[in-house]
Amino acid sequence: MSVLPLEVVRLAIDCMGGDHGPSVTLPAAKAFLERHPNAELLLVGMPDALKEAFAWPRARIIAASEVVQMDDPVEVALRRKKDSSMRVAINLLKSVDGAAPLADACVSAGNTGALMAVSRYLLKTLDGIDRPAIASVMPTQTGGYTTMLDLGANVDCTAEHLLQFALMGSALVSAVDGKDEPKVGLLNIGEEVIKGSETIKRAGELLRQAGAAGQINFIGNVEGKDIFTGEVDLVVCDGFVGNVALKTAEGLATMIITIIRQEFGRSWLTKAAALIAMPVLKRFKDRVDHRRFNGAALLGLRGLVFKSHGAADQLAFETALNRAYDAARNRLLDRVHDRIIAALQAQPSAIEESGGADVSGDKATQVVQAA
Amino acid sequence: MSVLPLEVVRLAIDCMGGDHGPSVTLPAAKAFLERHPNAELLLVGMPDALKEAFAWPRARIIAASEVVQMDDPVEVALRRKKDSSMRVAINLLKSVDGAAPLADACVSAGNTGALMAVSRYLLKTLDGIDRPAIASVMPTQTGGYTTMLDLGANVDCTAEHLLQFALMGSALVSAVDGKDEPKVGLLNIGEEVIKGSETIKRAGELLRQAGAAGQINFIGNVEGKDIFTGEVDLVVCDGFVGNVALKTAEGLATMIITIIRQEFGRSWLTKAAALIAMPVLKRFKDRVDHRRFNGAALLGLRGLVFKSHGAADQLAFETALNRAYDAARNRLLDRVHDRIIAALQAQPSAIEESGGADVSGDKATQVVQAA
Repeated sequence: MSVLPLEVVRLAIDCMGGDHGPSVTLPAAKAFLERHPNAELLLVGMPDALKEAFAWPRARIIAASEVVQMDDPVEVALRRKKDSSMRVAINLLKSVDGAAPLADACVSAGNTGALMAVSRYLLKTLDGIDRPAIASVMPTQTGGYTTMLDLGANVDCTAEHLLQFALMGSALVSAVDGKDEPKVGLLNIGEEVIKGSETIKRAGELLRQAGAAGQINFIGNVEGKDIFTGEVDLVVCDGFVGNVALKTAEGLATMIITIIRQEFGRSWLTKAAALIAMPVLKRFKDRVDHRRFNGAALLGLRGLVFKSHGAADQLAFETALNRAYDAARNRLLDRVHDRIIAALQAQPSAIEESGGADVSGDKATQVVQAA
Repeated sequence: MSVLPLEVVRLAIDCMGGDHGPSVTLPAAKAFLERHPNAELLLVGMPDALKEAFAWPRARIIAASEVVQMDDPVEVALRRKKDSSMRVAINLLKSVDGAAPLADACVSAGNTGALMAVSRYLLKTLDGIDRPAIASVMPTQTGGYTTMLDLGANVDCTAEHLLQFALMGSALVSAVDGKDEPKVGLLNIGEEVIKGSETIKRAGELLRQAGAAGQINFIGNVEGKDIFTGEVDLVVCDGFVGNVALKTAEGLATMIITIIRQEFGRSWLTKAAALIAMPVLKRFKDRVDHRRFNGAALLGLRGLVFKSHGAADQLAFETALNRAYDAARNRLLDRVHDRIIAALQAQPSAIEESGGADVSGDKATQVVQAA
């Protein structure tokens, strides 16, 4: 078996972001480096806090003097903290004077609203994309996962936006999961084409056209329950609905784990049963462990930005690093670009919005805590 | 302890509806009758199929010659099957020539779209209500449940509709759960008032005004995860979002139970562990058992209609009968009416829609399989 030399993949990490900062991001970075011999890391943050990484091979410390706090308003991150670790890390994705950018992708566990706003401001959106979207994965009962977008970046979407999400999401799944023709479903309240709001029905038409033109593999409407069956690879929805679905799922999972704990903790008898059932319960917990699904992609920007959950621990943050690495190595940015360009050329009217629509400004991208 | 004589409560049951028809509805009806000495039942369906109930005390058979099938389009239920068990049962809620209606509430496990359309056609909406809504309950980790509406009757809602849902839902919770001032949350993508779409922000304003006027107990925005914490009694949302949240929760619950089964079924060792953990797993399953939460209310009509899950078994159908019974006994219809009238008098502009809006017709109520 011949082994091809792997190209170097360089990730920028906002080491100060998240609830735990360097105490989580550094051990995760170290484990990640050991696992990927072709990876290089640009560790961004206050040098004093990153001392232990000074001697690491394939890692460089990039200094930043400020930190965006988890509760900082978007305006503070955008206008006041111009030397924040988040901003410096994102800036490493920009090409300066035509030279290749220093980093291939950036990962931060910082506040989602700030991350989206700063990324959008610094990187700008790709041609043909009105609004960036947030994509993440949910586990399925077949042991895999379903990618979903948008999860909260856009509260009011047109049918054209939903088509753009389908194109970008297909590129993401093909890059990160290696599925060339990911199955795309439109989240609706029934499988029949007559179901849903006017926007959803129109989006269904656009997705069917894009499917017929071979731009995506559209299989039709899906319902909330289909997120977990593994029958589709990608679920497309607006950010309001996606965020509600994501948080409903999180809330229910938390409730179920709480109830299982309560019931097994009732008496010495149930505690003994828990001991015996432990290995099984642990495997169950592993399969639904949200840490295995950490790392949301901010899609549609001229640069690869990944958002880790703010409360991520080492394992979770490493998962996010792995996702960013896979995306960079498999040229996600080019894939998004290619799909959008192909769609633009085939049906310019379908993907571009009609003249009067509001496609920019604060209203267009109201970023929320999506991950 | 003195026992007050209970008033008679009379339920009409569409015995033919649902996946199983009389084989489920009749045993449930019998168990219900035994439990409620002051209840009377009007059992609607093909007399041949209901023979076993002929001799029951406090039950009468009302003949109908047709059955609305689970996959019948709304038009068939509405225009063709004029002697369906569903339609005859709903008709028993209508007062004829000023006399009291024969039944206080009606329960059907038939197809949701047909049930909503026929109910709306026969009963009409209450004054001040533009659109009926579907309300149901979800379990919480504190052992209680949260009522949610709308779950799929209305895909496009205005802020005024959401206020109406809050008023009707508060009446439902107070009637069925005995909570006088149920805590109302508006489903959103963040707790801050600046979050959400324009419609949601405007709905937040209306709900705050109604809260300040003492018409509801509004506690602010809630997120998907809050459905399961038990911190609010009522979650208000549009039918698209509500339906997606409901089905996402159903899908995740199914996945989790599937995974637990798979993991406990792996080997003789895990099967032995399952035997030992059985009593605990059973209590867990009981606590999240959807049969304990069956029975969605169709609110805003001039009559009390309850929808059982189509796949309901005897226990589940009995739960729906109990909910309808509680609603009738605690005068839910009057409570909805009173709340709407009070709100109308206090802020007529807030509850009534602006002139041009589409508040009727097919577009307004696009009913889906919500329960």
